[in-house]
Amino acid sequence: MKRAILAAVALAAVAGAAKAEDGYDLWLRYRPLEKAVIARDVPYASAIMAQGASPTILAAREELQRGLSGLLGKRVPLATALKSGTILIGTPKDLAIAKLALPLEKAGAEGYVIKTVGRTTVIAGNSDVGALHGAFAYLRLVQTRGMLNSLDIVSAPKIGLRMLNHWDNVDRTLERGYSGISIFNWWELPGHLDPQYKDYARANASLGLNGTVLTNPSGVSAATSLETAWIKKAAALAGVMRPYGIKVYLSVRFSAPMEVGGLKTADPLDPQVRQWWKDKADEIYTLIPDFGGFLVKANSEGQPGPQDYGRSHADGANMMAEALAPHHGIVLWRAFVYSPSPEDRVKQSYNEFKPLDGKFLPNVIVQSKNGPLDFQPREPFSPVFGGLPNTSTGMEFQITKEYLGFEIHLVYLAPLWQEVLRSDTFAKGEGSTVARVVDGSLFQRPLSSIAGASNIGTARNWSGSIFDQANWYAFGRLAWDPDLDSKTIAEEWLKQTFTADPKFVEPVTEMMLGSRETAVDYMTPLGLAHQMATSHHYGPGPWVDDAGRPDWNPVYYARADENGIGVDRTATGANAVSQYAAPVAKAFSDPKATPENLLLWFHHLPWSYAMPSGGNLWESLVHHYAHGVNKVAEMQTRWQAMKPFVDAERFQITADFLAMQKENAELWRDGSIAYFQSVSHLPLPDGVPAPAHPLSFYKSLKLPFAPGSPGRTASPFALTGK
Amino acid sequence: MKRAILAAVALAAVAGAAKAEDGYDLWLRYRPLEKAVIARDVPYASAIMAQGASPTILAAREELQRGLSGLLGKRVPLATALKSGTILIGTPKDLAIAKLALPLEKAGAEGYVIKTVGRTTVIAGNSDVGALHGAFAYLRLVQTRGMLNSLDIVSAPKIGLRMLNHWDNVDRTLERGYSGISIFNWWELPGHLDPQYKDYARANASLGLNGTVLTNPSGVSAATSLETAWIKKAAALAGVMRPYGIKVYLSVRFSAPMEVGGLKTADPLDPQVRQWWKDKADEIYTLIPDFGGFLVKANSEGQPGPQDYGRSHADGANMMAEALAPHHGIVLWRAFVYSPSPEDRVKQSYNEFKPLDGKFLPNVIVQSKNGPLDFQPREPFSPVFGGLPNTSTGMEFQITKEYLGFEIHLVYLAPLWQEVLRSDTFAKGEGSTVARVVDGSLFQRPLSSIAGASNIGTARNWSGSIFDQANWYAFGRLAWDPDLDSKTIAEEWLKQTFTADPKFVEPVTEMMLGSRETAVDYMTPLGLAHQMATSHHYGPGPWVDDAGRPDWNPVYYARADENGIGVDRTATGANAVSQYAAPVAKAFSDPKATPENLLLWFHHLPWSYAMPSGGNLWESLVHHYAHGVNKVAEMQTRWQAMKPFVDAERFQITADFLAMQKENAELWRDGSIAYFQSVSHLPLPDGVPAPAHPLSFYKSLKLPFAPGSPGRTASPFALTGK
Repeated sequence: MKRAILAAVALAAVAGAAKAEDGYDLWLRYRPLEKAVIARDVPYASAIMAQGASPTILAAREELQRGLSGLLGKRVPLATALKSGTILIGTPKDLAIAKLALPLEKAGAEGYVIKTVGRTTVIAGNSDVGALHGAFAYLRLVQTRGMLNSLDIVSAPKIGLRMLNHWDNVDRTLERGYSGISIFNWWELPGHLDPQYKDYARANASLGLNGTVLTNPSGVSAATSLETAWIKKAAALAGVMRPYGIKVYLSVRFSAPMEVGGLKTADPLDPQVRQWWKDKADEIYTLIPDFGGFLVKANSEGQPGPQDYGRSHADGANMMAEALAPHHGIVLWRAFVYSPSPEDRVKQSYNEFKPLDGKFLPNVIVQSKNGPLDFQPREPFSPVFGGLPNTSTGMEFQITKEYLGFEIHLVYLAPLWQEVLRSDTFAKGEGSTVARVVDGSLFQRPLSSIAGASNIGTARNWSGSIFDQANWYAFGRLAWDPDLDSKTIAEEWLKQTFTADPKFVEPVTEMMLGSRETAVDYMTPLGLAHQMATSHHYGPGPWVDDAGRPDWNPVYYARADENGIGVDRTATGANAVSQYAAPVAKAFSDPKATPENLLLWFHHLPWSYAMPSGGNLWESLVHHYAHGVNKVAEMQTRWQAMKPFVDAERFQITADFLAMQKENAELWRDGSIAYFQSVSHLPLPDGVPAPAHPLSFYKSLKLPFAPGSPGRTASPFALTGK
Repeated sequence: MKRAILAAVALAAVAGAAKAEDGYDLWLRYRPLEKAVIARDVPYASAIMAQGASPTILAAREELQRGLSGLLGKRVPLATALKSGTILIGTPKDLAIAKLALPLEKAGAEGYVIKTVGRTTVIAGNSDVGALHGAFAYLRLVQTRGMLNSLDIVSAPKIGLRMLNHWDNVDRTLERGYSGISIFNWWELPGHLDPQYKDYARANASLGLNGTVLTNPSGVSAATSLETAWIKKAAALAGVMRPYGIKVYLSVRFSAPMEVGGLKTADPLDPQVRQWWKDKADEIYTLIPDFGGFLVKANSEGQPGPQDYGRSHADGANMMAEALAPHHGIVLWRAFVYSPSPEDRVKQSYNEFKPLDGKFLPNVIVQSKNGPLDFQPREPFSPVFGGLPNTSTGMEFQITKEYLGFEIHLVYLAPLWQEVLRSDTFAKGEGSTVARVVDGSLFQRPLSSIAGASNIGTARNWSGSIFDQANWYAFGRLAWDPDLDSKTIAEEWLKQTFTADPKFVEPVTEMMLGSRETAVDYMTPLGLAHQMATSHHYGPGPWVDDAGRPDWNPVYYARADENGIGVDRTATGANAVSQYAAPVAKAFSDPKATPENLLLWFHHLPWSYAMPSGGNLWESLVHHYAHGVNKVAEMQTRWQAMKPFVDAERFQITADFLAMQKENAELWRDGSIAYFQSVSHLPLPDGVPAPAHPLSFYKSLKLPFAPGSPGRTASPFALTGK
């Protein structure tokens, strides 16, 4: 049999070369383990037994069979009776499971127990979905070469709603997506269900995600998707997701009662409007009985909202919440709101929502971006976390790398997210971390949620690059357990995605862990933010002061002049520090107590400011840029050494992208240094190369071919008839 | 070994289920043949020997090895010495080939000889590319279960330039594409070459195509792609295509000297403009030494052109031709021009180009759509074919089914193309078929060309549906030999794509062959045309009279009123018949001599007109609509019976699409009948069901989710910032 498999692999290498290792399999690759590991594991996985025939149990059984057959290199059969080495999966409805003394009380509604009983491995949940999550956890264990002989695992998710947010438009374009177009082919729905939908559900379920918002909260997609024809399309997708424990949500546009319903107003206090939302909710639940709810972007960046009628965010959210409540639906109301006002943009979200704390209905979650600005390479945590003790506050992370080099730059985001989740808000004294706000435990909230803006598209490797799969993976793992460690997650992902060989896993883990700081260094070191070029955001634009609104201008965020750089957000300035709890505010008010990596976020300092880490501010800033580029070069060298461990296709795309990242990092370094030097008039420190071109060159650069460039997504490409 | 393979296949079915038969392999599937065929073929394909190390010979060798190893179920080795059963591939530069008496004089520059000599199979060309084409032809032969024991084949392409035209924009959107977005990822070029590019080249080379126009001739893509950064991107693609004998072309915008060059005019007689094009051509050839040339859409549908400066199409084309001539480049100048003038739109192309006949430089080809209108389900051949004896006249077919149901409807287009190619222009007496115009033989033209507007995109199956792959395939085969038969091509494609089992091939061939007439029946029977809904073109709109211009209105093309229907294009009307040679004009002038399937194209007739095939015109029209729908239902039934022969994924997408086609065919039938009955006021013939809804219903329908719908591709989806 082994000979057969080897022959088959050799043959496949010839005949199916085009399909080999293109990244589609993600971390569910299930390629044969090393021989010794197979020999070790086989006695514990000789067959699979699953009572019950719910679609979820069948999905779990199918996944176990697919996974183990691949990993062990032979077809693992289904069993009808328990024998030594059988994997038994199910819930206590299965008597064989019920009679075991499993600690299921700790597994919650969606968690699982995995326990070795004799040579039987029991995978159990209180629900079918819990058992499914257990099956994926077990397969992760096998893939990461865990020992199977004495398992005793209990796991339950700490956060209630764990979801992807797709910024996918109904025409399949992606806002801030760098991986093709939306995998949701609305045109062909509901008539045809692409097989990829199931693989999407599998991948998400393997991480324990339990929700997906199918459409973009910006733009008319969020109205269109409420039309009956579209709800039927969403219902078809919901049918694919359901066995995998994933609920479908839709973004909705506040003005939908007008655009879809033909009403003359969308005033949330208007009885007709309120009735329209109730009727629409009833219609949706008729077609999608387990529909999750609505995601709303209102009164932000031109989107309509309750303030258009002199009403508050609470008025708007509660109207929808009332419509959804009878069906147990949820409103996710985005806290990302700001307007071109004299108030510091980073203060506006807190200012809007703080007075509304406690005014939201129980089925409303206020969903805030991790930082107070906009998914920058580094920001402090948003003061909304900890600031709203009487509001369920959800976390919104950005998996798609809008500000971190698109699909090209290798940036592992778990360290960023971990930094945020472990930040201490001090809202209820020390230990009041953002993670404890988000999981609801700090304020004993009935609801808790975490969302990631998806990086998934039609690219064969899903995310545009292989390493961006790690960000999808890491988001899902942190959603299940926000206390997980970035390093653990990276190792898990690498072992499943490539190989468990420590000669590969160790250096590449290290590379991943440092990659985010590297990007911060060459893009926005020392607490700088929003220094990117307009619209496309790929490359530097620190000189930009004409982006349409002051708060879209990089100069607004660096305030660099001949005297110094940075934004004074202490009490002598914008006083953003006042939005944080006292111990945090105190630290952020003092340059010496502010973490150096957030220094310029909170303080305007002279170029000569003596840095605690040595040198003055000017020198330190320039060194960070240079260091970032050097680190990318190191990543390139390191990856080249990994060639023996990686298949050709996945090796090459990563090598190519690292070369492109290097080029763009140099652009960031040189463009930024050229600009800041033009205002500081200071010489470059020794060892830092002068920019290759004058500042005018960097200013003149356009990237018309970068996703998100103006002109690229605009009307020149409209239909002309042919 | 066989046991090993079977085991491997079984295992693959479990482990790699997600990848199984998604259509990516096209007709180059190379799955194991039936056992008996393998036993029969193995002695003739035991090894592969190829002297020479040109990239093209290496590509041929690689393809033979990949293909035969897959087909024969064992790795076929490379040989270093000729033994019994070896396949010998190369050119006469290889002495072992030179000493054989092969009829290479008939193979031309790109053709091939395949000949059995003893047990050696010799595949030879006068060029490496000829040998490559031979390798693909040989693999086609093996896949279609041809006998290998006494091969004696010579083949050469009849048409010089055989190319795909991509209407792909530089932002990767497709104009009239229904298969995702462009496979050309301009953003990542030239830094990363997606492996799919090579598979694209392989597929095209397997058909003998030798050119590809990478970008859309409409819109700013055709200017952008002339910027230096973009030429470098095109050069990277050219590098992938080159070993496969495929030259890269670019669409160019006539105003590019202004948009890219910063000049104040694009007047083709302006010396600066002429110099700009020369310089641009020089630049391109520095980066792409074998660059093919330019495709131009000028003074058509709002595109800029020489007439903007009072110059002629010849002035414009010749300017570019002069720039390209030193490099042996070609200008493909589209004849698809019309303006909102009182003249019948179908006459305008001929009217424009007839006076210019003989005025184009030798490296200019005037490229005309097959019909005088616009890729309708049926049109007569364009009088441009045969009308320009002193001009190289190229054929433009549309592979993408803009007017034939997108990727959803199963419509095999070879019968349409065959109908056109076999049409007799009588330009030089009987036998002056369109095919003889296009291959250049009728008028002894130095250049000949055929182009197909591509249906390829990022959809995993390339074309959006499995059966649309057949249209790509058929186009390529007809480009090589326009005298090939639709049936032969369908059988070839089915055997390679699915199975050679006659219980599958025979009924499905029949289904394919009838499918185009079926679509004509439910869309535009009896010579009707342009009855589709505005913009998206998916569904009926015979009532539309407000599409912006008279010649965009379906009512302009049916002229239906209570007295009758059809357009009088005889001498008593628009006199379009006068553009054809006398015998053709005479036939088209007489309703009795006009083919019934073109009747209403040329004649306005009373509803009571007695049809030669029986009944009156009204009854016949209605019966055609009804018949079309019935035939789709038959296709559904037939496909269901094919389930045992087709893998699950490809079976299901086809079954789903047939169900959607049925629904849309009913819409065409009911909407068309409802409208025409509203003007004819006549009762429906017995047996034809009344439309399910009143006419107002069909008029009210919008398909905002159909590709090409207004609002779907327009600005509501522009960036909003997030």
